[in-house]
Amino acid sequence: MSVTAAKGFVAGGVACGIRKAAPDLAVVHSVVPSVGVAMWTANRVQAAPVIVSKGHLAAADPRAVVINSGTANAATGEAGIAAARATAAAAAQRLGLDAEQVLLLSTGVIGAPLPVDKVERGLAAIELSAEGGEAAAGAILTTDSGPKTAVAERDGFVVGGMAKGAGMIHPCLATMLAVVTTDYRLEPAQAAELLRPAVEESFNRISVDGECSTNDAVVLLANGAAGAPAADAAFADALREVCAELAAKIVSDGEGSTVVLEISVTGAASTAEATAIARRIATSPLVKTAAFGRDANWGRVLMAAGSAPYNGGFADVEPDKVKLAFNGVTVYDGAPVGREPELDGAVCRIDLDLGLGSGSDAYLASDLTYDYVRINADYRT
Amino acid sequence: MSVTAAKGFVAGGVACGIRKAAPDLAVVHSVVPSVGVAMWTANRVQAAPVIVSKGHLAAADPRAVVINSGTANAATGEAGIAAARATAAAAAQRLGLDAEQVLLLSTGVIGAPLPVDKVERGLAAIELSAEGGEAAAGAILTTDSGPKTAVAERDGFVVGGMAKGAGMIHPCLATMLAVVTTDYRLEPAQAAELLRPAVEESFNRISVDGECSTNDAVVLLANGAAGAPAADAAFADALREVCAELAAKIVSDGEGSTVVLEISVTGAASTAEATAIARRIATSPLVKTAAFGRDANWGRVLMAAGSAPYNGGFADVEPDKVKLAFNGVTVYDGAPVGREPELDGAVCRIDLDLGLGSGSDAYLASDLTYDYVRINADYRT
Repeated sequence: MSVTAAKGFVAGGVACGIRKAAPDLAVVHSVVPSVGVAMWTANRVQAAPVIVSKGHLAAADPRAVVINSGTANAATGEAGIAAARATAAAAAQRLGLDAEQVLLLSTGVIGAPLPVDKVERGLAAIELSAEGGEAAAGAILTTDSGPKTAVAERDGFVVGGMAKGAGMIHPCLATMLAVVTTDYRLEPAQAAELLRPAVEESFNRISVDGECSTNDAVVLLANGAAGAPAADAAFADALREVCAELAAKIVSDGEGSTVVLEISVTGAASTAEATAIARRIATSPLVKTAAFGRDANWGRVLMAAGSAPYNGGFADVEPDKVKLAFNGVTVYDGAPVGREPELDGAVCRIDLDLGLGSGSDAYLASDLTYDYVRINADYRT
Repeated sequence: MSVTAAKGFVAGGVACGIRKAAPDLAVVHSVVPSVGVAMWTANRVQAAPVIVSKGHLAAADPRAVVINSGTANAATGEAGIAAARATAAAAAQRLGLDAEQVLLLSTGVIGAPLPVDKVERGLAAIELSAEGGEAAAGAILTTDSGPKTAVAERDGFVVGGMAKGAGMIHPCLATMLAVVTTDYRLEPAQAAELLRPAVEESFNRISVDGECSTNDAVVLLANGAAGAPAADAAFADALREVCAELAAKIVSDGEGSTVVLEISVTGAASTAEATAIARRIATSPLVKTAAFGRDANWGRVLMAAGSAPYNGGFADVEPDKVKLAFNGVTVYDGAPVGREPELDGAVCRIDLDLGLGSGSDAYLASDLTYDYVRINADYRT
């Protein structure tokens, strides 16, 4: 049910011709007044839709999100900004809104222009309905193998979301594109306060390839249509559930991925060091190729852990205090243990206990495979 | 001629049985008194030979280096330290030195033990001569496609070196293994002062896969056997030349590599930001897979540049001031230029001018290919 699971939202997807013979334009719209909040990429090169949407959010409460795939409309100069504004104007006209009530998300090749004429024809033709969530989720994909949606139903309200992302995936602030809707009633400030920790624990703890997109965005729209009484803890829990499910779906659909690495770091000198070490392991090409080869090459995990950038140097690791397990089998405990864990199946769990303090964190990562190389060597051509 | 090009050095290589049917043990020895200096990995997980050699360097002027391939003797606990000490003792006995005059370098699988009995038999059997430089350079290799040597002859003295390294290559402090010898006369403090900038400009500006080894080391031995008069500027120049040549050979032999990326960043707000941005581009999987596909996908270079970790955030980039060229063809100048450069051949030059200040730096990097994945998915098995 995706972004239309919550009351008062309609959505749809259409093929407008940016991509060849594939749906490439989606709209999500709250038919009643809504508030919204978003988290954006921290990349210094920000796409035109990111720049324009930030201005819109500062000016008005959002009621709609327009998403295109096929081009990121990033690094496109003034022409890209104009194309984004024209898209918002066309969507506002179609939906009876002000242009500032429309947010824009784009995903695809960086540097390619957004063909506004095609987008305008698509916006005129697109069918929006309370059953259109799946069509919207299908129209925002690029190298994804399929739609990524999640819904959490709670007593009196619903949180639903969709996301895209398979490559150029690594936390910056928010990561990839995700739209989450709810019929729970929120104030804008409250929405921002609740979205941040949910994103921090989910989208900001995954890595496919260590790359931070120019277009990353997570948008939350809340319209209160459920008329449910205030239950903020229940809402925060449902929001976390939806974000975590979408994030996990992005990793397991990582470009070329064959296994998901569940990386847990405990016993670090500080939480920040646990995060740095988990992130370093999650982005290590040698850990990720070994995982692809189903080789429990634990020495590479120690190599990565020992070189995790932190505070201008490396995070603290003392090899004689370290304990490391693959899939529950201890392989190193201050020295090699001499056991060979079995690595088959679609999940590889790595538990690293540094034995230094109480800092802990976790990451989800995909492996590095022939298909990742193939997909990204061939992407434009 | 490698490490025996300079007067007063002998060397050799032998197969002692750590690797299957391949030379795996090398010795470099100055037959006259020498001084030495080394730069070591900054990884928090340091190999046993690194730990032991640091102690030796603090205690005595080095006269010999023993290098084994096949195991890194890293993350091997107390047993690894004992194996390294036993190796130094055996080499000292063979060469008539104190154990503290012997430095140790190891390269290979992390976590595998060093078989001391095999090393001792190898040290008894190895033939050392002034013609043995090539044999030594051949015995230190792992996934390298061939020996990496460099010699700079100057008026009255010679600098020669050898290196190994094809994967787990990314600057930390020093990177990979390299031994450089000279018959120029140096004081230890002077040797350290001269080695640092040469390494900084060469080995510390290359990346194959962004991985920082547990065993990285660059060793410089100087024995003064040339009897040449002081000419420190000429020596510094020759040392730079040898380090740069060895570093370039490591990149062009990067695991699975088909093209060398010559990355130049100019116009950065500061030198440190130029370094951060050049390093980020050099380690970007998407830039490196595009290079493998011979796709001038310049948007990915901007994406990487915009997300270069610096000072707890990202280095400064303002897209409308950026100018970017591939192989001399400008593709972006504040906005897309609409030109498609040809990418064929073994070198791809990327010139990024940020238009912000006078900071500049450069990196050499390899591409990311099917063969990198194959080599590292299969490495242990």
